[in-house]
Amino acid sequence: MSTGFFDGIDTIRYEGPQSTSELAYRHYDPDEMVMGKRMEDHLRFAVAWWHSFAWEGGDPFGGQTFVRPWHPQDDMGRTKMKADVAFEMFGILGQPFYCWHDADIRPEMGNYADNLAGLEEITDYMGQKQEATGTRLLWGTANLFSHRRFMSGAATNPDPEVFAFAAATVKGCIDATHKLGGQNYVLWGGREGYETLLNTDLGREADNMARFLSMVVDYKHKIGFEGTILVEPKPQEPSKHQYDYDVATCIGFLRKYGLQDDIKLNIEQGHAILAGHSFEHELALAATEGMLGSIDMNRNDYQSGWDTDQFPNNVPEVALAYYQVLKMGGFTTGGTNFDAKLRRQSLDPVDLVAAHVGGMDICARGLKAAAAMLEDGGLEQALAERYAGWDTPGAQAMLQSDLGAIQRRVLEEGINPEPRSGRQERLENWVNRFV
Amino acid sequence: MSTGFFDGIDTIRYEGPQSTSELAYRHYDPDEMVMGKRMEDHLRFAVAWWHSFAWEGGDPFGGQTFVRPWHPQDDMGRTKMKADVAFEMFGILGQPFYCWHDADIRPEMGNYADNLAGLEEITDYMGQKQEATGTRLLWGTANLFSHRRFMSGAATNPDPEVFAFAAATVKGCIDATHKLGGQNYVLWGGREGYETLLNTDLGREADNMARFLSMVVDYKHKIGFEGTILVEPKPQEPSKHQYDYDVATCIGFLRKYGLQDDIKLNIEQGHAILAGHSFEHELALAATEGMLGSIDMNRNDYQSGWDTDQFPNNVPEVALAYYQVLKMGGFTTGGTNFDAKLRRQSLDPVDLVAAHVGGMDICARGLKAAAAMLEDGGLEQALAERYAGWDTPGAQAMLQSDLGAIQRRVLEEGINPEPRSGRQERLENWVNRFV
Amino acid sequence: MSTGFFDGIDTIRYEGPQSTSELAYRHYDPDEMVMGKRMEDHLRFAVAWWHSFAWEGGDPFGGQTFVRPWHPQDDMGRTKMKADVAFEMFGILGQPFYCWHDADIRPEMGNYADNLAGLEEITDYMGQKQEATGTRLLWGTANLFSHRRFMSGAATNPDPEVFAFAAATVKGCIDATHKLGGQNYVLWGGREGYETLLNTDLGREADNMARFLSMVVDYKHKIGFEGTILVEPKPQEPSKHQYDYDVATCIGFLRKYGLQDDIKLNIEQGHAILAGHSFEHELALAATEGMLGSIDMNRNDYQSGWDTDQFPNNVPEVALAYYQVLKMGGFTTGGTNFDAKLRRQSLDPVDLVAAHVGGMDICARGLKAAAAMLEDGGLEQALAERYAGWDTPGAQAMLQSDLGAIQRRVLEEGINPEPRSGRQERLENWVNRFV
Amino acid sequence: MSTGFFDGIDTIRYEGPQSTSELAYRHYDPDEMVMGKRMEDHLRFAVAWWHSFAWEGGDPFGGQTFVRPWHPQDDMGRTKMKADVAFEMFGILGQPFYCWHDADIRPEMGNYADNLAGLEEITDYMGQKQEATGTRLLWGTANLFSHRRFMSGAATNPDPEVFAFAAATVKGCIDATHKLGGQNYVLWGGREGYETLLNTDLGREADNMARFLSMVVDYKHKIGFEGTILVEPKPQEPSKHQYDYDVATCIGFLRKYGLQDDIKLNIEQGHAILAGHSFEHELALAATEGMLGSIDMNRNDYQSGWDTDQFPNNVPEVALAYYQVLKMGGFTTGGTNFDAKLRRQSLDPVDLVAAHVGGMDICARGLKAAAAMLEDGGLEQALAERYAGWDTPGAQAMLQSDLGAIQRRVLEEGINPEPRSGRQERLENWVNRFV
Ligand SMILES: [Co+2]
Ligand SMILES: [Co+2]
Ligand SMILES: [Co+2]
Ligand SMILES: [Co+2]
Ligand SMILES: [Co+2]
Ligand SMILES: [Co+2]
Ligand SMILES: [Co+2]
Ligand SMILES: [Co+2]
Repeated sequence: MSTGFFDGIDTIRYEGPQSTSELAYRHYDPDEMVMGKRMEDHLRFAVAWWHSFAWEGGDPFGGQTFVRPWHPQDDMGRTKMKADVAFEMFGILGQPFYCWHDADIRPEMGNYADNLAGLEEITDYMGQKQEATGTRLLWGTANLFSHRRFMSGAATNPDPEVFAFAAATVKGCIDATHKLGGQNYVLWGGREGYETLLNTDLGREADNMARFLSMVVDYKHKIGFEGTILVEPKPQEPSKHQYDYDVATCIGFLRKYGLQDDIKLNIEQGHAILAGHSFEHELALAATEGMLGSIDMNRNDYQSGWDTDQFPNNVPEVALAYYQVLKMGGFTTGGTNFDAKLRRQSLDPVDLVAAHVGGMDICARGLKAAAAMLEDGGLEQALAERYAGWDTPGAQAMLQSDLGAIQRRVLEEGINPEPRSGRQERLENWVNRFV
Repeated sequence: MSTGFFDGIDTIRYEGPQSTSELAYRHYDPDEMVMGKRMEDHLRFAVAWWHSFAWEGGDPFGGQTFVRPWHPQDDMGRTKMKADVAFEMFGILGQPFYCWHDADIRPEMGNYADNLAGLEEITDYMGQKQEATGTRLLWGTANLFSHRRFMSGAATNPDPEVFAFAAATVKGCIDATHKLGGQNYVLWGGREGYETLLNTDLGREADNMARFLSMVVDYKHKIGFEGTILVEPKPQEPSKHQYDYDVATCIGFLRKYGLQDDIKLNIEQGHAILAGHSFEHELALAATEGMLGSIDMNRNDYQSGWDTDQFPNNVPEVALAYYQVLKMGGFTTGGTNFDAKLRRQSLDPVDLVAAHVGGMDICARGLKAAAAMLEDGGLEQALAERYAGWDTPGAQAMLQSDLGAIQRRVLEEGINPEPRSGRQERLENWVNRFV
Repeated sequence: MSTGFFDGIDTIRYEGPQSTSELAYRHYDPDEMVMGKRMEDHLRFAVAWWHSFAWEGGDPFGGQTFVRPWHPQDDMGRTKMKADVAFEMFGILGQPFYCWHDADIRPEMGNYADNLAGLEEITDYMGQKQEATGTRLLWGTANLFSHRRFMSGAATNPDPEVFAFAAATVKGCIDATHKLGGQNYVLWGGREGYETLLNTDLGREADNMARFLSMVVDYKHKIGFEGTILVEPKPQEPSKHQYDYDVATCIGFLRKYGLQDDIKLNIEQGHAILAGHSFEHELALAATEGMLGSIDMNRNDYQSGWDTDQFPNNVPEVALAYYQVLKMGGFTTGGTNFDAKLRRQSLDPVDLVAAHVGGMDICARGLKAAAAMLEDGGLEQALAERYAGWDTPGAQAMLQSDLGAIQRRVLEEGINPEPRSGRQERLENWVNRFV
Repeated sequence: MSTGFFDGIDTIRYEGPQSTSELAYRHYDPDEMVMGKRMEDHLRFAVAWWHSFAWEGGDPFGGQTFVRPWHPQDDMGRTKMKADVAFEMFGILGQPFYCWHDADIRPEMGNYADNLAGLEEITDYMGQKQEATGTRLLWGTANLFSHRRFMSGAATNPDPEVFAFAAATVKGCIDATHKLGGQNYVLWGGREGYETLLNTDLGREADNMARFLSMVVDYKHKIGFEGTILVEPKPQEPSKHQYDYDVATCIGFLRKYGLQDDIKLNIEQGHAILAGHSFEHELALAATEGMLGSIDMNRNDYQSGWDTDQFPNNVPEVALAYYQVLKMGGFTTGGTNFDAKLRRQSLDPVDLVAAHVGGMDICARGLKAAAAMLEDGGLEQALAERYAGWDTPGAQAMLQSDLGAIQRRVLEEGINPEPRSGRQERLENWVNRFV
């Protein structure tokens, strides 16, 4: 009862670094122990339904390039075939999780009631497949950005009816996520932002967005959903300026509205660099605030100014990302989602499988390098030495004093500090021993 | 007793738009009433001591280009001559305010006690000049970034002795600002950030920076300084990543540490665009939060990725900035500082004067355009219409309800909202009637 | 026999700067004389068929927002209705020209022969409309980037059959342009570039692209088409890296293959800034080389890294662009095309008209400012003075000498040049008297 | 007779990948054979005098951080001490080459004659050291950008006397390079560009620059210098817009003036990404044109918009760069220069040594990976297959035909090409087997 879509492609196996097979794991060995935990349980890989199965290859200058047996995607029958193919690929890859938006998994029916019914039917179908295969749901989410009704925002729309439609949609998606045992629920506000300040009431939109998130948190508690609520920062595209610009902006927003204990962040490399930050900056900042929930491990191209959502392929960068994850103790409900799409010229089923295999292997190498760095401890030790002065009683006392007292001490003791090397290149060399 | 530096340059007068004099105001007429207030009292122009008198024309690939009679700047006598020239230029321009860092106005003596003594001597001297001329101090600030002792940060330095040195320096600068009747005190943390995360403890540095700011606020109250404490966002340069990245980051930070009522923001166009925002975005966001204190009205080049600090020269952009300022009710203690430097090839005294005349005229045109837009009211009316739905009792009730109630209503009423035009181009056209 | 699409919108008239009508020209008066030529004949405005009539409002994160009576666009009947609406708008605006790609004006039939037949039918229909209305064709072009057959390039495709399909398509489009009296023929190579160097043979693709262009030039001569062949630089999007990156790259390419006398450039502001240049840089460079053919006067957003194709709205920027155009003597076959699209939230027919009215007015203001600057002559005079030293016989002799002779003179005469001010701010101020 | 500057630092040895020494080569083994050539002879490493020994740690917001025994650098005695230290470091590292600007190695005397005399004295001294140690000169160059006399350009200065000064300076530097057996002579035109088009005559400046380069080429031949003349592309910084923007611009310029056979390019990663290109793009383009001469293997930070000139530390990126170098047959006179500077906080002598050790090791890893990829041949084979259609007689005949003939064939044969996968992710995975 295979769909035949992946004919000729076998289940991917771990074959070790020396393997020359195209379709084998060289580094991802789910059962290998890393810092006392199975690699699979560290990485918690998820496949994204939208890019892998729903996106048809279009870009702003061209239309569909992929030709799939489940096209057009406007019919429940073909949508189920798409689910069959998806779970077949999960079987081939052996990754433990997947993710969806409602719009990826059901046909668009043009009204709320039919969309909700479609969502219920398809998630029942997918629930059976989960049970049959063991693949689990990392997170569900609502697509509140593609349909024209959301063109001016969902929670931040000038029209309260759109807020209502969006709220009802999110309720349906949380219900479905809960039903499927999802471990998180994500909100990405692609249209929660503006195209021009000339027609935008920033303050009102922020308040409405906060109220929307509060309702989500309340509803989660009401139904006993124990997953984590996550928001995903991104600076722009589709909007000129998205409210969830970056990690610092999201945390500031959540704290302003008292949501900082109930919502964490899903952080994507591509969005980090669009916002002018390195990925590890965004991860480190969120971790420092205790708000790093999950990651979208897909890169953007450094020379392109839009969201290219490519599979990761640079081990040194990935290693620094997992270093932040391991340093905070690893994921709890979160994981490593590939919010990554094939290049639109990568037409073949084998491209889709190979892209995931490559991405998973890159992550496995990065994780092992990160673990080795942490176990060696060189970086943490250098950090402790650099800041050691702050651990003295005198320094702590100064922090509790005031400008007048400090000035007196500087004058009396003639304090005139001599700078010490930051040792950046030596630390970079140290990292390069492991990556 | 003129220094002769500006020989041949007369006091700048308002001559009206038709004037063809190079050195005349065509648009800046201090006494012209705009929305019930004198133009001078709206704009509150300030000249920046550092760029205009202390910077010698160097850039990363070349040294000094300017040759000034007060060079080298390492001697109190020549430093006073520099002050004489500065106040002569203030007389020529007739702008009401100026700003300084300690390092611009006194020689660097290499230790705290002598630097403090130098600061006291020169600010006494400047105080007499203020009294004689009527030019006032918009803000003072401490340069905690140029000397090598601050290379790894001031408040966020790994070495507590540097924190002490910085705190004592800021105390001296607040004292001097208070003595001179300064209307604000500014902190810009050029080295409060990092070059590499590998040697940086983000959480500890943030805590220390917050503690530093708290001491500043406490000290202000202690001495009865009634000016506003301002921090100035900037994303990077000199550091790879500065903690005060942008307005949203600063506000989030201040709120986290309970400083949001005591500190406002000084926002610069150049830093806004380095951070990936438009200037009006940063202004609108700060104004919405009640935290827009003052502005640095100097632009960066759109094609260069560093802080070029050029004089403003684009009226439509400046008009949108003042639109935000007027909309929030105008400046209180803040004003329009030109944190702008000549291009390093602009060697002549007349270049320095002409640059300020041009910048002030651009701002005057922008202010008048902004006032005309606000008086016309077209934009505010369009905004009110766009969000009118939210003012209904039903919409407000929905905001207080929950996801379940909203879903029921969507289902019962078959809510299926139809999008309405955002009218962006029409609003842009409307703006272009005024700029 | 109106389509009714623009019901309630009258022909746009020039009403002068004081008009408060939303739909009036305040600055564009076709018959006003500017430097001895009618304004209409300077600006030579063209409406772009693709953005105004074929684009449906989609972006990478959402689908169609516009609902038009000619949707879906897959039928010759509705395609003709689209043409009726287009020419109605041309009548409303009164602009003299328009532009098209084949794919905008005919339905996609899926094969070459039917596409060609469709193109012939619709261009016959449009030819009748041209005759009836007097609106003329500024340029035609072939869309060699949207259909999946072109996903890996057209002239640079690894598959020679795609080259053939593209060449045949371009022949059809040149024929149609010739038939309609088009004044130029444009090539924009959206897919002539690469997604990854790993699968790309740079040298071979460049050779093939040059050969393709040579065939175009040969064919133009063969059929007696007297219009100009233009290529349009753009650095990227859709491809990661487009071969026609910017003006310098295009000129270098054309010169390498001996095409520099037969092909000129169509330069777009949005593409200029994507490539890291100012628009006036690109115009000045092309003009200096005698290769500035025509312009696409649509801006990109300075904070977004993709091609937003917005209507122009900044007079100072537009003035500097027309300054370059006027300085080279004005357009010959070229003109001012609006390769600009509405924001996708601008749903109403009045948005479409207003956007063009606003754009045309901005250009008219810019043109008049540019003419005033040129007539004043201040900038050109400053330039002549700055370089005057090069006009001396000594300087010219030096240019014909050699390093040895120059060294001898430097040593003998003790040459030690003193720098002179570049006067940048004074020149910027001068410009601001006119814009 | 050691200076003692590097006390405690021994000669760096190859110890293999498992070594945990901080100061050892793990990958750079000069004598290891790679594709039939010693690794040292492939990589041809050079240390840059300016960053390593002359730069004092300043940036736009701060001054000197480094304190060196040869400071201040305004005296021939201390300048010779600097040379002693430099050659000591060359001995420690064992790299075969170094590079200089005149301004790095001699004190600035303020006039041409004394500067020339200083250059002759110090290069005699360095020549003796070369002989004693075996370290050779990869290239010399003239600093025509730091002194204020060059603030408006050197070859492109509006003042012909500056052109003369620059030409005489370059003659002196070529003579010195020739005397020292330098293998190349480089020109980087940091001020050959503009700050504003308002004061710039683009065409005249380009012509003068070309004439200057021609004189350099003529002089090289006259004195029998057999090294390669190289220009180094960079888009901007220090100037707003540099004429040698990128590889394509340089090649176009050289071809316009007939210099393409006499001048090659020195390409830097940092400048490539500032210009919006990947490093391998710039290398591949230059190699395709036969104009890749040498490389500056220093990276810029991807999140900073200026020239950070950091040591390389990302093996996958470096491997793709050497892949281009190996594919073209390797360097002839060129090599791998580290135009890289320490971070300004890296104060210690050991930082300087460690940075070079790390950079050299990264390059060695990259080179070996590149060689393995080339020896495997997978990428080249995939390329050959992708373009195989173009090798058929039919395709070649088509290239020699015309649009009419092609159209006939498309119609007759009903050509309707079906796209084939570009296989990007599979190729990226393949690369990741080697890096
Ligand atoms: Co993304
Ligand atoms: Co994502
Ligand atoms: Co600035
Ligand atoms: Co500032
Ligand atoms: Co465009
Ligand atoms: Co265009
Ligand atoms: Co560089
Ligand atoms: Co370089």
